[in-house]
Amino acid sequence: MSSIFSRIISWEIPSYKLYEDAYTYAFLDIFPQTPGHTLIVPKVEVDHFADVPEPYYSAIFQTAKKLVPAIREATDCNRVCALFVGFDVQHCHYHLIPASAIDDIKISKNPQATAEELQVIQEKILSALKMNI
Amino acid sequence: MSSIFSRIISWEIPSYKLYEDAYTYAFLDIFPQTPGHTLIVPKVEVDHFADVPEPYYSAIFQTAKKLVPAIREATDCNRVCALFVGFDVQHCHYHLIPASAIDDIKISKNPQATAEELQVIQEKILSALKMNI
Repeated sequence: MSSIFSRIISWEIPSYKLYEDAYTYAFLDIFPQTPGHTLIVPKVEVDHFADVPEPYYSAIFQTAKKLVPAIREATDCNRVCALFVGFDVQHCHYHLIPASAIDDIKISKNPQATAEELQVIQEKILSALKMNI
Repeated sequence: MSSIFSRIISWEIPSYKLYEDAYTYAFLDIFPQTPGHTLIVPKVEVDHFADVPEPYYSAIFQTAKKLVPAIREATDCNRVCALFVGFDVQHCHYHLIPASAIDDIKISKNPQATAEELQVIQEKILSALKMNI
């Protein structure tokens, strides 16, 4: 059984995709902490981030470095926070969370965003991404 | 004025050091979320993680990959979570937080640990680190 993220990467499950390369896939979290909350997933099914083999491991952070300026520009946040947490899907995923204050970072489950909310922020990030890479 | 982390790196301020190389310095957070809570700081004063230049940027994650197995072994945690948050010291720092459940991850300030608590966990991590690198 593939993880839900592998099924997203293979397009079996649709997602609000932001970026993809040979080793990573990035898309909007549909339970965002804040608008623009993004997940970067390596294209290898490993639970814990520190167990992700190269070149997938380093690729996660290179993808983050590409996406963060776009997310900052798209969301007008104070900063983007980045987190590996786990405890839910057993496929490593790196959260990029636009935040204006420390209280924006909560690890509990949030209400699902609407499709419209997700599309708006996806477009903003993609647009900002084009300017930056 | 140097950041508090630069003053720790230069030994002007003492710390419970766990690891150091040319680009990074890792030590125990004295306000731990859980015992073994570690900070990795690049040896360059940059506020936001995504603005940290290479080779410092990639070095942070290579240091994390070295430390995490040791922290897991030392703390008997379920997993280590890793976070860039910010909003406090304006010198990028990567939190490695041993966690047994998602509720272990709180971003608010915690009570300062005692020197004994810190020494015990430092020794455990250093000992586990020797086995792993």
